[in-house]
Amino acid sequence: MVLADAGAGLRNETGIAVVLGILKQRFGESFQTGEAFRAQHTHTTTYIPGQLPDGVAFPETAGEISEIVRICSEHRVPIIPFGAGTSLEGHLNAPNGGISVDTSRMNRILKVNTEDLDCVVEPGVTREELNTYLRDTGLFFPIDPGANASIGGMASTRASGTNAVRYGTMRENVLALTVVTADGKEIHTGTRARKSSAGYDLTRLFVGSEGTLGIITSIALRLYGIPQKITAGVCPFPSIDNAVNAVIMTIQMGLPVARIELLDTAMVRGVNAYGGLDYPEMPLLFLEFHGTDAFAEEQAVTFGEIATEFDAGEFLWASEPEERNRLWKARHNAYFAGMAMRPGCTNITTDVCVPISRLTECIHETHRDIEESGLLAPIAGHVGDGNFHTMVMIDPNDPEEVRQGEAFVARLNERALSMEGTCTGEHGVGQGKQTSLRTEAGESLDVMRAIKRVLDPDNIMNPGKIFSI
Amino acid sequence: MVLADAGAGLRNETGIAVVLGILKQRFGESFQTGEAFRAQHTHTTTYIPGQLPDGVAFPETAGEISEIVRICSEHRVPIIPFGAGTSLEGHLNAPNGGISVDTSRMNRILKVNTEDLDCVVEPGVTREELNTYLRDTGLFFPIDPGANASIGGMASTRASGTNAVRYGTMRENVLALTVVTADGKEIHTGTRARKSSAGYDLTRLFVGSEGTLGIITSIALRLYGIPQKITAGVCPFPSIDNAVNAVIMTIQMGLPVARIELLDTAMVRGVNAYGGLDYPEMPLLFLEFHGTDAFAEEQAVTFGEIATEFDAGEFLWASEPEERNRLWKARHNAYFAGMAMRPGCTNITTDVCVPISRLTECIHETHRDIEESGLLAPIAGHVGDGNFHTMVMIDPNDPEEVRQGEAFVARLNERALSMEGTCTGEHGVGQGKQTSLRTEAGESLDVMRAIKRVLDPDNIMNPGKIFSI
Repeated sequence: MVLADAGAGLRNETGIAVVLGILKQRFGESFQTGEAFRAQHTHTTTYIPGQLPDGVAFPETAGEISEIVRICSEHRVPIIPFGAGTSLEGHLNAPNGGISVDTSRMNRILKVNTEDLDCVVEPGVTREELNTYLRDTGLFFPIDPGANASIGGMASTRASGTNAVRYGTMRENVLALTVVTADGKEIHTGTRARKSSAGYDLTRLFVGSEGTLGIITSIALRLYGIPQKITAGVCPFPSIDNAVNAVIMTIQMGLPVARIELLDTAMVRGVNAYGGLDYPEMPLLFLEFHGTDAFAEEQAVTFGEIATEFDAGEFLWASEPEERNRLWKARHNAYFAGMAMRPGCTNITTDVCVPISRLTECIHETHRDIEESGLLAPIAGHVGDGNFHTMVMIDPNDPEEVRQGEAFVARLNERALSMEGTCTGEHGVGQGKQTSLRTEAGESLDVMRAIKRVLDPDNIMNPGKIFSI
Repeated sequence: MVLADAGAGLRNETGIAVVLGILKQRFGESFQTGEAFRAQHTHTTTYIPGQLPDGVAFPETAGEISEIVRICSEHRVPIIPFGAGTSLEGHLNAPNGGISVDTSRMNRILKVNTEDLDCVVEPGVTREELNTYLRDTGLFFPIDPGANASIGGMASTRASGTNAVRYGTMRENVLALTVVTADGKEIHTGTRARKSSAGYDLTRLFVGSEGTLGIITSIALRLYGIPQKITAGVCPFPSIDNAVNAVIMTIQMGLPVARIELLDTAMVRGVNAYGGLDYPEMPLLFLEFHGTDAFAEEQAVTFGEIATEFDAGEFLWASEPEERNRLWKARHNAYFAGMAMRPGCTNITTDVCVPISRLTECIHETHRDIEESGLLAPIAGHVGDGNFHTMVMIDPNDPEEVRQGEAFVARLNERALSMEGTCTGEHGVGQGKQTSLRTEAGESLDVMRAIKRVLDPDNIMNPGKIFSI
């Protein structure tokens, strides 16, 4: 059971009581302790059970965050940063109680520098809010993890999604951060310079640290020009092998594909049933190309030629938005279609990422495992990066199903590690993947722990996530 | 004087004597203490005076590096990792003596995974060796800092160079490392997966840490397909403003330019004199585009249209290698042409990087400063990233010139910081930029120092670099 890994220890009841009193007095209505607020600020998205915080603070400035951290630090009370609540591995749980710091009121876009293709935002801004705001500038922020996550949360889990193959992940797209560390000080981890060799890369250290080293108070992000033209399409393949080999050739040729997504046959059946669609029931690749008028078309044509070499069915593509959306509908619906395949159930979403040369083998062995386990587990993948998600549908109230699902995930993670991959391409470790991380990181976990201990000696910053101390 | 910042302390004479004895016995001819060897393993590339190590080890395996580190650790003797000796900020100096660990015999290319577009190399492999080896695979490693640096050294200083604007820096192109840490253990910081959210980003922590946290023993790198076609050219502009504005528009349009380099008029005069060339004596942009046959040409044509909007002279471009090299000759010669402008002198090479919207202003103020100081200091810049180098030519034996040069650099670095930039885009801090780093990093320097202290409690890994402890 994953929570055995959550580092749950004794609650500091005295400290928590004192802090609740201080924060209530200091923040009034901006600090809530009611059950409903607390229940909204725990893990809610997967089968991992929620563990409620003792109170929820709604700071509006970095100064207020700093104040909250100093109060919690003095009384050794845990702090759990909260963005939009869309994380998948129990990041928002409070195994030892403590204070959820909800950043949703810190949702200002502080600056957009159109000439520099960058912006500075507060952590509570969601990616959709940012792109809506940017619309008139001709720029956009490409990272798209599916959910309308907050930028702070995306930075904290090193999120990515469908177009990482072209634009990178939060690792590549965060220029700099300001962060309140465990002692309540606010530091800046870099400048707006595009590149820098000025000392340790603290920006990258905090990106992906899941709130365990500090609370992000602002983020400088790279932006990109909205492409002159977008082409998008869908292409059926006779087998996973053929689809993945087409992806490999596409990438080897240097075709700068913006998105290249795989649905396996089980997922295609699901989306057909969910949306009344009639995609051929075979592995599908969904593609998107960005460029000038000529180049966006050239890329689609070139991909069509590659697909033919791998015995694909017809590659349907278009550049008109309505038609593009129609072609991509199955991919957009995949999550909900997966959920609808077994109503009333919840899911364990896996997140392995392997070198693309091992992807076919990894998916085949996983399919075999699914069949032998009798699980319902359709697959959707960001195959350009070698990253795929298996939606393992389970009844969370059936301990045997939970055990089976967890055992399947453990096997899948080990399989990915044996293929020089990682147990998590973009979701993070949280509470759910700590056992796999121990295997994956080996002795480097001691280095991570040493850094955690020196930067957060009292273990108040999102304790019990990534690893137990 | 920069060495005031080098953290020079007392030499541990007893420990050094013991370690010299042990290493001599253990490594025989693979450990050298002669003056010539020691002089070759100190800083030699700029005006910063060399500080010799006490001995030079030539390990051939990670196991041998681990052994050396354990011996030095036991006796608290400094270790200075050495790649190809091309760094510019005194990274190789031994202010407190100690052992230079020369990785040049660790020059094996361990694996090339053509389907995954990656490879794994030992730290002593140089970038030219790697690209020669890769030639038949259709792949290449793009990072080009000018010098034929070692991959280990490039990772350690977070190097980049002319085509970072398209392919990123070592930050983006190192997939994973193995590192021997200060306790002699070898850890791996990641896998070959293209992306990962598995805990703290130790890869990025070690990249750019200048050997102060450990010695890199292998590097997994991203590779890229050799483009079907390369076009390249040169274009004169009536002013720095016009040239930089053309760069800004190029990038805003999303044109994926592979290189976009600026020489100022002083540098153009230098290269004309040096090479008997006749470039127009005005700011020049050198460009290179990678792509399919059609797209590499389309990009050049599009840039030509942009250049016209900014009153450029004729944009000469070509796709034949000989003609491309002829057009780019001035850029290739810039370093030597700069050196030849004042024979017998050495240089201080600056390395600021600012948001591109501030680049024109930064160069103008720097030109004014050069004029007022009476310095000879031509400029060459990786303008797509906002990064430029001023080659300040000085007589290292004239203390007044050194003082003047250092004062100029300090002003330039402050100017860059005031424009939300960094004092070092790609060269690193070493001994030379510690004062500027203090201003730039502010309180985040305490976080860097805390990490250093916990991972290297005896301060044996390249002490006196980046900051003093």
